Amino acid sequence: MIQIAVLGYGTVGSGVVEVIDTNHASINKKAGEDIEIKYVLDLREFPGDPVEKKLVHDFETIINDPDVRIIVETMGGVNPAYEFTKRALLAGKSVCTSNKELVAKHGPELLEIAKARDINYLFEASCGGGIPIIRPLNSSLTADEIDEITGILNGTTNYILSKMASDGSGFDEALKEAQEKGYAERNPEADVEGYDACRKIAILSSLAFGCHVDFEDIYTEGITRITATDIKYAQAIGTSIKLLATSRKIGDGFYAMVSPVMIDSNNPLFSVQGVFNAIFIHGNVLGDAMFYGSGAGKLPTASAVVADVVDCAKHLHRNIMMNWSSKKLELMDISQVTNRFFVRVAGSMAGELAGIEAVFGKVEPISIPSVTEEFAFITEEMTEAEYKEKAEMVTGIISMIRARF
Amino acid sequence: MIQIAVLGYGTVGSGVVEVIDTNHASINKKAGEDIEIKYVLDLREFPGDPVEKKLVHDFETIINDPDVRIIVETMGGVNPAYEFTKRALLAGKSVCTSNKELVAKHGPELLEIAKARDINYLFEASCGGGIPIIRPLNSSLTADEIDEITGILNGTTNYILSKMASDGSGFDEALKEAQEKGYAERNPEADVEGYDACRKIAILSSLAFGCHVDFEDIYTEGITRITATDIKYAQAIGTSIKLLATSRKIGDGFYAMVSPVMIDSNNPLFSVQGVFNAIFIHGNVLGDAMFYGSGAGKLPTASAVVADVVDCAKHLHRNIMMNWSSKKLELMDISQVTNRFFVRVAGSMAGELAGIEAVFGKVEPISIPSVTEEFAFITEEMTEAEYKEKAEMVTGIISMIRARF
Repeated sequence: MIQIAVLGYGTVGSGVVEVIDTNHASINKKAGEDIEIKYVLDLREFPGDPVEKKLVHDFETIINDPDVRIIVETMGGVNPAYEFTKRALLAGKSVCTSNKELVAKHGPELLEIAKARDINYLFEASCGGGIPIIRPLNSSLTADEIDEITGILNGTTNYILSKMASDGSGFDEALKEAQEKGYAERNPEADVEGYDACRKIAILSSLAFGCHVDFEDIYTEGITRITATDIKYAQAIGTSIKLLATSRKIGDGFYAMVSPVMIDSNNPLFSVQGVFNAIFIHGNVLGDAMFYGSGAGKLPTASAVVADVVDCAKHLHRNIMMNWSSKKLELMDISQVTNRFFVRVAGSMAGELAGIEAVFGKVEPISIPSVTEEFAFITEEMTEAEYKEKAEMVTGIISMIRARF
Repeated sequence: MIQIAVLGYGTVGSGVVEVIDTNHASINKKAGEDIEIKYVLDLREFPGDPVEKKLVHDFETIINDPDVRIIVETMGGVNPAYEFTKRALLAGKSVCTSNKELVAKHGPELLEIAKARDINYLFEASCGGGIPIIRPLNSSLTADEIDEITGILNGTTNYILSKMASDGSGFDEALKEAQEKGYAERNPEADVEGYDACRKIAILSSLAFGCHVDFEDIYTEGITRITATDIKYAQAIGTSIKLLATSRKIGDGFYAMVSPVMIDSNNPLFSVQGVFNAIFIHGNVLGDAMFYGSGAGKLPTASAVVADVVDCAKHLHRNIMMNWSSKKLELMDISQVTNRFFVRVAGSMAGELAGIEAVFGKVEPISIPSVTEEFAFITEEMTEAEYKEKAEMVTGIISMIRARF
C-alpha cells in the first residue's frame, strides 16, 4: 500500500479525492499497489465530508510521517506551495501538482532536487488540464526536435472568444456570462490578460527545448481589447480569433509569445470551441500533431494529477527523466518575429487604401456592410518591427490583431 | 552505447535509420546513452546506401550477437516477424515494432515474454503512425476508466473519402489518385476493406480495457460501397462520411466495430482531412480527449518507432507495464449495438415516405435537387437488429450508412 497526502481541498484537491475513490480498483491495478489517502491538508474544516477524519491543518504532520510517500500539491500559488514542495522532495517524498505558477517559477530547482533523490516531481495537470501533454513531450516525442508548440491553453478566454463569435456579444458581456457559469473567476485578470497561458507555454517550451524558458521573458497580450467588431471582420473572411500561446525555433533562435491571433479553417486549432484546450506541436520528423481535451475543470484536471500519482507509485525509487535544465533559454526579441497583421483603420477604403498600400505594399482589403466609417486590411508577412514602423506612418489605425494563414 | 538492429529496410525501416541519423544528438541525450545501429537485416542488397556495410541477410547474425540489446522490427506481416520477435525477446533483447498485424495477433504472448524477462515489447507506431497514443493510453490515462475509443485510424481511406468530398469524384477515381500519390498500395484491400483499421482498434481496445480483443471478432465494413451520391447527401446536411473504428463500453458489455459513419461538425473527428489520423477517447473522469497527427508515412511512423527505442534504452532491465492480459474480452453481438441509420431508397418522397414512417416511425427525410428518382432518410437511434428487421419490410432500399449525431 502507498499512502499519500493531498495539500489543499479546493476544486482540484477534492477532485483528486473523488477520482481516487471512484476508480480505485483500476487505479490500484495500474499502479501495482493500493493507493490510500492518509491526510488532506486544509485550513478549513469540512464537517460531514468524507475526508473529515483525514483532515489536518498542519503540514508538519504530513512531512514528519514516513508512511507518506507521495504528496499531491493542489494549493495553487507560489507560497507556501514552494516551501512545502521543496521540503517534501528534500524529505524523499514525490510530489504531483497542478500548480503552473510554481512549476513555471521554480520548476528546474524542484526537478533537480527530485532527480538527486531518485524520486519525482510531476506536473501533467499544470498545462492543458486533463490533456496528456507533459508526458507525451517527455517520453513520446523523444525522436523529434520540436520546432513549434502553439496552444489554446486557457479555457476561460477560449470560452469568451467562442461566445463572442457565436452570439455577437462584446467582451464584457461574454466575460460576465463566463463568470456566471463558473468558467471565469471574479478577478479574471490572470486569464484574460494571458498570464495563465504565458506560464503554461513557458513550461511546455522548457520541456520541448530542454532549457529554462522564463515566463517573464515572454511577450504577453490578453484578449481584453478584442471587440464584437473584430469578430465580425474575422467571420466575414472565414477566420476565427483565438488566444494562442506559441513558441518556435527559427534557425538557431527561439521566440515565445501569447496574443490573440486570427486563424483560418486550415489550422487544426480553428475548431477548438468553448472551454476546450488544444496543443499543436510540430516535430522535425513527426510533422504536425495535436492534443485536444478539457483544459480545466475539477475532474479532468484531477484525472491528470492522479495519473501522475500512479506514475510516482510505479517509480517510487526511480527518477523519470525530464528534459528541462536550469540553463536559461535566451529568447529572440519579439521585434524580429514575423506575422501577418490584420489592421482596422478609420475612413473609407476608396479614400485611404492607396495611401496604406504606399506604406505597407500590397494588402488584402476587407470591408463589411454592417461596419461603416472604417475598413480593415491584412498585410503580407513582416516583422513586428517593420509593422510598427509602417503603422506609425498611417493615421487612423483603430486596432491590430496578428494573423496566421 | 547501446547497439540496435533493424529488421527490414523498407519504408519504415529506412525511416528509422534516417531519423536516428538526423536527430542523433537529441535522441542520445534523451536516451541517456548513444544509440548505434549495428545491423540492418534485409534480403536485398543496397549498393551505395549508407547502411551497405551494416547489411546482413541472416537473422542468426543478429540473434547471436550479445551486443545487440534492442531490435527494431519493421518487416510487417506475421511471418517471419513473429518467429524473429519471439526469439529476440526470449534471448533478452527488447523489440520495438510498427507491425500491427503481429501485435493484434500475438500481442499478449509477446508482452508476457517481455515481462518475464524484464525487457520490453513496444509498438507505439502500430496505431496512428506518429501520433502518440499507445504510451498515453498506458501511462497518462491511468486515472480513468475508458469507455470509448473512436478513431480515424487509416490514412488511405480518409484520403479517399476526403478526396471524394472535395471534388465529387467516385470511389474508383479517388482510389486511383491515392495509388498514384503513393497513399494507397497496388493491392488496397487491407485499407479499403477496413482490415487495417480493425487491427488497430483491436490493439487500442485491448490496452484500454485490459483484456484481449480479438480482431477477428470485430464487425468490419470498408468504404468500397460509398459512392459520390452518398457524399452529396452527406454534404447537403452538413455532415461528412468517415471510416470510424470504434470500441465502447455499454454497461458491463463491450462492442467494437469498423464502418463508414456519417458525423456532423460537433464531432471533433469531423475536420480530420486527407491522410491525417485522429483518435477520440472518452474517460469517465477525463471526459473527451483527442489525439491528432500523421497516421502513416515514412518519417512520422519512424518517429514513433524511434521514441520506443529511446524508451527501451531508458528501461533496459525494467519492464514497462502494459494493461493487456491474454484473457479474451467477449464482445457484444453487433445486433445489439445502437446507431442512427442513413438510408437511401428508390422512388419519390411523396409516394414512399408515409410507408417508410409506418415501419420506422418518425424519420428525417432528405432530398437533394441533383439526385432524382430516389431520396434518403435518417432514422432515430435503434439497434442493428431492429434496423435490419425494419429494412426488410421496406422495398427499394439502395444503401445504408450509420449516422452518429
